[in-house]
Amino acid sequence: MSLSKEQLAEYLAFAEELADASAEVIRPYFRAPLDVTDKGGRVFDPVTVADQAGERVMRDLIQARYPTHGVLGEEDGTVSGSSPLTWVLDPIDGTRAFITGLPLWGTLIALNDGERPVLGVMNQPFTGERYTGTGSGAWRNGVRLKTRACDGLTSAVVMCTTPEMFPTPAQRAAFDSVAAQARLTRFGGDCYAYCMLASGFVDAIVEASLQAYDIQALIPIIEGAGGVVSAWDGGSAQQGGAVIACGDRRLHEQLVEALKHAAEG
Amino acid sequence: MSLSKEQLAEYLAFAEELADASAEVIRPYFRAPLDVTDKGGRVFDPVTVADQAGERVMRDLIQARYPTHGVLGEEDGTVSGSSPLTWVLDPIDGTRAFITGLPLWGTLIALNDGERPVLGVMNQPFTGERYTGTGSGAWRNGVRLKTRACDGLTSAVVMCTTPEMFPTPAQRAAFDSVAAQARLTRFGGDCYAYCMLASGFVDAIVEASLQAYDIQALIPIIEGAGGVVSAWDGGSAQQGGAVIACGDRRLHEQLVEALKHAAEG
Repeated sequence: MSLSKEQLAEYLAFAEELADASAEVIRPYFRAPLDVTDKGGRVFDPVTVADQAGERVMRDLIQARYPTHGVLGEEDGTVSGSSPLTWVLDPIDGTRAFITGLPLWGTLIALNDGERPVLGVMNQPFTGERYTGTGSGAWRNGVRLKTRACDGLTSAVVMCTTPEMFPTPAQRAAFDSVAAQARLTRFGGDCYAYCMLASGFVDAIVEASLQAYDIQALIPIIEGAGGVVSAWDGGSAQQGGAVIACGDRRLHEQLVEALKHAAEG
Repeated sequence: MSLSKEQLAEYLAFAEELADASAEVIRPYFRAPLDVTDKGGRVFDPVTVADQAGERVMRDLIQARYPTHGVLGEEDGTVSGSSPLTWVLDPIDGTRAFITGLPLWGTLIALNDGERPVLGVMNQPFTGERYTGTGSGAWRNGVRLKTRACDGLTSAVVMCTTPEMFPTPAQRAAFDSVAAQARLTRFGGDCYAYCMLASGFVDAIVEASLQAYDIQALIPIIEGAGGVVSAWDGGSAQQGGAVIACGDRRLHEQLVEALKHAAEG
């Protein structure tokens, strides 16, 4: 369905309310001691507790404000709505970063109109950074973002959360070949790396094994900053899997050419 | 030489002055557009400019306050002093993090008494975090740090800046074997990862190809928090090379056992 400019603005403001509410719930668990025992004597894992609590507060707000909308979340799966609009939520993207104390995790919030994600938010409460995008614009704490030009792989800065994320030898070999040709490859980053790409500090991200909720919020941010996100075969990335994100279309074309043979995983 | 408690406190306060001064110089270059052309029409690389400017301001302050002290810095090499005391400086540890916009780089400042680093500072001006250590204590923004217990590799969270940092196949294989046995391995981090270890969120860091200025500031921070840092053969890590840092001595013994055969590189 097509949203008016006013509807998009309303939903983006609501997505920011979701970011505020989830941050309040999640933030106290970041850098909390692991393996804390609760009052009942049970041991719990702060990242799991924070993930669940963050998703619950967002689901409750959506249910109260837009009861006809669907919700797809990492923790509690899909709840279909009578509206084609679906909120796609990952309360803590980058659980390894969260566990190790690194401020590179984020809360991902997307709104999908039934065809594609039309707005996205990445919220990082420790650094106080909020990245938002609508496909036609993207912002960091309200300041407009723009990807940078990069004419090809040999001049590209490439990121990837971990070289262990590729599910098949063919995908790993294809990634290794890209990494070997790049000017610089850096591991680690999760959703934060995509925001650095939208900000013009990274040229390409090559990943695999993503879920829909790992990528949907990041697509409108990168596209809004002038970049492109696709599957390795050039098709839509919104269902996750093997994904390429680039700041410059020329680099994207080159990477699809280099990676499409391994797209099926 | 042995420093009195008063001397150590004086030098730590001075190291914090160096951190303040270098941050003022370096911070404006973080997330500045790359390949900016200066007024003379020359293209420059912000990380190199920031690195050089950060080291210069620290060297000037040391020369003014303690003209007999030596300085070992990443950018300008070693200047010996008539005193056995040497300041060991890395203005931007984690240049790849700096270049890609990630707030995981830091300014490293150590004072070596001629035998070992006796105090260290890791300063991260974007997140506003300063880690300090004297071997007998360690602090984050003045709050005491303590490593966590970890009785062995299978329950350990291990970090490493990149699996590409090992100079020989034997070292890479030894690292891969450790990573495969660990509960979780996370790449990326540079000096920030060592501070997360001192803070009790990471159990071990296994790296190689380090320089003396990459590690000296971090040794008093980790030791002050209750951890241990050594070369892969169990000897001193202060000259860099292949390094193991652990929060718990039991894990450290296990890792020296697992890695010492590849210590020579």
